[in-house]
Amino acid sequence: MADPAKCPPLTRASVVAAHSLVKPYIHYTPVLTNTTLTTLASTPQSVSALEGTPWAGQEPAKPKIRLWFKCENLQKVGAFKVRGAFHALTRLVAEEGWEEQGGRERGVVTHSSGNHAQALALAARTMGIPATIVMPRISTPSKIAATQSYGARVVFSGSTSTEREAVVADVIKETGARLVPPYDHPDIILGQGTLGLEMQTQVEEMIASGQGQAGEKTKKGKGLDAIIAPCGGGGMLSGTALSCEGTGISVFGAEPEFQGADDCKRGLAAGKRIESVSTLTIADGLRTPVGAYPWTIIHDRKLVRAMYSVTEEQIKAALRLVLERMKMVVEPSSVVGLATALYNEDFRRLVEQEGGEQGWDLGIVFSGGNISIEALGKMFEPAEKKA
Amino acid sequence: MADPAKCPPLTRASVVAAHSLVKPYIHYTPVLTNTTLTTLASTPQSVSALEGTPWAGQEPAKPKIRLWFKCENLQKVGAFKVRGAFHALTRLVAEEGWEEQGGRERGVVTHSSGNHAQALALAARTMGIPATIVMPRISTPSKIAATQSYGARVVFSGSTSTEREAVVADVIKETGARLVPPYDHPDIILGQGTLGLEMQTQVEEMIASGQGQAGEKTKKGKGLDAIIAPCGGGGMLSGTALSCEGTGISVFGAEPEFQGADDCKRGLAAGKRIESVSTLTIADGLRTPVGAYPWTIIHDRKLVRAMYSVTEEQIKAALRLVLERMKMVVEPSSVVGLATALYNEDFRRLVEQEGGEQGWDLGIVFSGGNISIEALGKMFEPAEKKA
Repeated sequence: MADPAKCPPLTRASVVAAHSLVKPYIHYTPVLTNTTLTTLASTPQSVSALEGTPWAGQEPAKPKIRLWFKCENLQKVGAFKVRGAFHALTRLVAEEGWEEQGGRERGVVTHSSGNHAQALALAARTMGIPATIVMPRISTPSKIAATQSYGARVVFSGSTSTEREAVVADVIKETGARLVPPYDHPDIILGQGTLGLEMQTQVEEMIASGQGQAGEKTKKGKGLDAIIAPCGGGGMLSGTALSCEGTGISVFGAEPEFQGADDCKRGLAAGKRIESVSTLTIADGLRTPVGAYPWTIIHDRKLVRAMYSVTEEQIKAALRLVLERMKMVVEPSSVVGLATALYNEDFRRLVEQEGGEQGWDLGIVFSGGNISIEALGKMFEPAEKKA
Repeated sequence: MADPAKCPPLTRASVVAAHSLVKPYIHYTPVLTNTTLTTLASTPQSVSALEGTPWAGQEPAKPKIRLWFKCENLQKVGAFKVRGAFHALTRLVAEEGWEEQGGRERGVVTHSSGNHAQALALAARTMGIPATIVMPRISTPSKIAATQSYGARVVFSGSTSTEREAVVADVIKETGARLVPPYDHPDIILGQGTLGLEMQTQVEEMIASGQGQAGEKTKKGKGLDAIIAPCGGGGMLSGTALSCEGTGISVFGAEPEFQGADDCKRGLAAGKRIESVSTLTIADGLRTPVGAYPWTIIHDRKLVRAMYSVTEEQIKAALRLVLERMKMVVEPSSVVGLATALYNEDFRRLVEQEGGEQGWDLGIVFSGGNISIEALGKMFEPAEKKA
């Protein structure tokens, strides 16, 4: 992957340039609305729902929120990760001397058990570059098979990041492959940010044409007031923040709070990035700590206004609503933003205060939809059935 | 409900008239495409996949099928049933003397534990008519709550049709309410058929504008070659058939075969309608035998070209594909048409022979999406975990 020093600057203009590179390879995913969920977001929580929460005894906030869902679960390989992967590889192919010096034959490598594995495999196959994906031996067979089905070579490792990185180092030594990290690189950040650009245009167009929010008064000719996006390694959140720089659109991040998965929120509070996290939150795409490059955008440049966290139960409740009412399949990581909009009184109070009578048009990023029926079933299994 | 003798004739023109009545009340649901599923439908099954089926040892068919999905899972109340319910009630309200003779106060009644219950409840509330829904005592609490949430009065009965009809008779005696049956009535059939009209227009528009089948050559300026729809009571299938009369579009029906749920197919073979069925197929919307009015359209007028049936395993396999690959939540009844297109060699051979090189543009009706996460999880639970 390109030397970060030679990457485009981390600006909105670079996200626009990234979009023109990746657009031919990715789906222009739809932005959807849902009356039931918008109504629910605009209805105050009950006093009893706040019992046992940090907001117990407070008057529930009365925000007016119109939700716009960017459906990256309908993206190629079922997640936004193809944006960064295609951007990294189109930039790599254009790199001076790379082809001439045998870069293509040496290929690319990454370690991932999740969506980045399939995204890089697909992008590499599309661009005719051999890819090696290092996956923990304990990865689910369906994910291994999916990665292989895109033509990648899968090499197994232990589960800790030390073990995974050691195997990556071996692969690089053996093949000379270039590492394409999942989030902590400017090219990846700029690629993921392209979803923010699309969202801005799509919502503006939908509001202008009167589409999408049946029975709701939307401000004529305007667009989003804010976007809330999930934060794991922070590549997509920080890219989205770049895509909104200078537009007046506020960007917020959402994390699970389980077992300290809210490292970015805690890091912001402490003024220092938290570099390691060990959590088994059901939002399995968000178990990683925020990376160094994303941190410079989120913290140093203050392009993310605030971070919020939600409980496992709130994630499950939001997931149920999306599946049963919106009829969309998303993975748990996708709904932390929606859960914040529905259940986090700090966020809801902010919308009430800033949005007032007119309310906010709030963009929600559904980051991916890769979950098996079995995993879904298990997540909602009655407690007494769990071993 | 209107005396059937006074209903509009069962023709395409009457479906068009029904559409103008119901359009203001319903969602114009999208038609979606999916590259993975279209590719799968256009790929011959493996020889080994046919082992143990009626087609064992045969050369697998090589049809070329482009799939177009009419998403009634995104319809109000999550199913096509609102079309018939709104049509029946708009016609009732317009009936001479109904209002003057106190018809509105007397209200409407039906018995249903499924989507028709919620559909009638919503339509009645929208039109300001009191509704009583007779539901079996053993109905799931969420379905009872959903029906009540639309403002209907729920009255409980036993589970057999005799017990349910007895309670309906009591309600009618007590209140003078008008019965709105779930499928066996011309007004219901004409209402359900409106989805067929929309599908025809939508696919024509999508083909004309080059949308929807990425990488696929579609015949320029044309539309659907055929539609395949689920058949339970047959109201929607026969209405869809009416909507296609004279258009040259073939209409097919699909049923589960489990425990004789394929009554319409068997009835056609025997030349006589089968009037009772007792099946516990997972496609729970398709457990009823085909009704007398639908039968006149399907059998007597031959407006449905053929019926096909699929196994429980084929239904589950198709359901998994829609959930995991298309990222859409549908109920099992929705996918019998897709399962036919993917797995039934009689149907696939027909498409190969009639469609040839050019193939068919095939409309698939996703009839509804009302299923809980728990029910989905249970359906795909490993066998050893089931009690």
